[in-house]
Amino acid sequence: MLQQFLELVGIAAFAASGALVGVSKRLDLFGVFCVGVFTGIGGGIVRDILLGIHPPTSLTSWANFGTAAVTSLVVFYAHSILDRLRTAILTLDALGMGVFATTGAVIALEHDSGALAAVLIGGTAAIGGGVMRDVLVNEMPLLLHKDLYAVPALLGAALVVVVIEMGGVNNLALVIGTVFATGLRLVALWRNWSLPSPRPTR
Amino acid sequence: MLQQFLELVGIAAFAASGALVGVSKRLDLFGVFCVGVFTGIGGGIVRDILLGIHPPTSLTSWANFGTAAVTSLVVFYAHSILDRLRTAILTLDALGMGVFATTGAVIALEHDSGALAAVLIGGTAAIGGGVMRDVLVNEMPLLLHKDLYAVPALLGAALVVVVIEMGGVNNLALVIGTVFATGLRLVALWRNWSLPSPRPTR
Amino acid sequence: MLQQFLELVGIAAFAASGALVGVSKRLDLFGVFCVGVFTGIGGGIVRDILLGIHPPTSLTSWANFGTAAVTSLVVFYAHSILDRLRTAILTLDALGMGVFATTGAVIALEHDSGALAAVLIGGTAAIGGGVMRDVLVNEMPLLLHKDLYAVPALLGAALVVVVIEMGGVNNLALVIGTVFATGLRLVALWRNWSLPSPRPTR
Repeated sequence: MLQQFLELVGIAAFAASGALVGVSKRLDLFGVFCVGVFTGIGGGIVRDILLGIHPPTSLTSWANFGTAAVTSLVVFYAHSILDRLRTAILTLDALGMGVFATTGAVIALEHDSGALAAVLIGGTAAIGGGVMRDVLVNEMPLLLHKDLYAVPALLGAALVVVVIEMGGVNNLALVIGTVFATGLRLVALWRNWSLPSPRPTR
Repeated sequence: MLQQFLELVGIAAFAASGALVGVSKRLDLFGVFCVGVFTGIGGGIVRDILLGIHPPTSLTSWANFGTAAVTSLVVFYAHSILDRLRTAILTLDALGMGVFATTGAVIALEHDSGALAAVLIGGTAAIGGGVMRDVLVNEMPLLLHKDLYAVPALLGAALVVVVIEMGGVNNLALVIGTVFATGLRLVALWRNWSLPSPRPTR
Repeated sequence: MLQQFLELVGIAAFAASGALVGVSKRLDLFGVFCVGVFTGIGGGIVRDILLGIHPPTSLTSWANFGTAAVTSLVVFYAHSILDRLRTAILTLDALGMGVFATTGAVIALEHDSGALAAVLIGGTAAIGGGVMRDVLVNEMPLLLHKDLYAVPALLGAALVVVVIEMGGVNNLALVIGTVFATGLRLVALWRNWSLPSPRPTR
């Protein structure tokens, strides 16, 4: 239950971020819808492909698809209000990232993945939608050249694996991992933390 | 039989569109070949990955791969003629889109997908090759900012699901869905129909 | 053993090429890490998705992931030295391409693929990482408009299939195919061979 509720929150947050990018690129209704839906459910689809879940849950679940679709349409028609809610969007996006990282790791463990695969698949689920969004609108993925994004995702997924391997139940691991990953991302945004860049080439 | 024949027509039409884009980007022989083949068989590969068909049919079938390969080579050497046949190409592309949408939905149903998954997987098969083509040549996918493209694909796949759930045989569903999707796309092209764009941000 | 050793060499070579591209794009530490790791293990992941190996070997193997990760970090901190080793990188990249083409074909045959699928999946494994690298940093994939790259990969994979179908053992096929593919690529680089371009459109 907790896992499914959080997943829908994550899907809505990602779909909103994707649809807003579509609006900013002046796409038409279906383009905004497409980018929104793919961003919302893309990470989960990649996770399911990696785990061999056929067809991917997000393509069979009306709740997942519907959440992404309705969110994208709302953004299309109400984006001028949402633009002012940029802080809310960034916060929801951080929550979505945290949720996908931790639910991805839990689902991977449930499908007999080892620790390494669970962390990497959780991380991929968390960043997959955003990478699809940026590739679709022909921009270099944000995660490659912006503030801390994938690091909290990987650490959150790793925390889930550690808690479960120490005997914790899934819901405990989900809460701890999501709070940690989302919190780290928000602090990084607020403090403007970033990683070092390469030294200039001589 | 009907399904396989139509699928080869669709592969040839998509491969031709991909190879023509490659020519317009001044790629070399193998580049044109690559874009053509990926565009021709890409949608079917994505469909099979989503359905867990390993390895994807288009990688194991000489007919599918050969159709895409030969079409791409013909376009490379004869593109100056084909340029004049732009209307024919657009018509074939619309037919290919309709065919992939409907065959994708039928194949998804045959692999125990529900109605939602069948529609989404049919739609993905119809647009997958074109999205790959545009990502490969580093352009924003046409379907995101052009006239009605994915809407007819999704409606055609939905029509297939409705006809089959009402008891119709596969071939009947294929014909109805393909005629509808292709026809809607052609009318949209001819009438220059498009979807609304977002209102300007204040 | 031989197969695994060669695969790690290939992963390191591809990861180094990806990380160097990340450095040249002025990405931060994680961006360079990401592009390096995806380029190193991306081809193998695509191969495993096409073959239905879940989760993909490179996500479960510490050796594969670790090789890609360490190589990317070394390049990030030591790239000014590696820039001077461009010839070494290109040579290693050619070896990696040859190794992935031949190991991909062998693994595909072991998973009951036919000859066509084995060649295409070997070729996809050889070029997959490089295509991901170029799509991630928003450039048209090199293989589409540069010197002979995918042709040696496909020929090397085809040679593997021929040797094995003629009764040769896997290791023999791997050595012959890798030497041929890598050698052809190096000769093409050295002699500046390329394929014909389309005739100008009238």
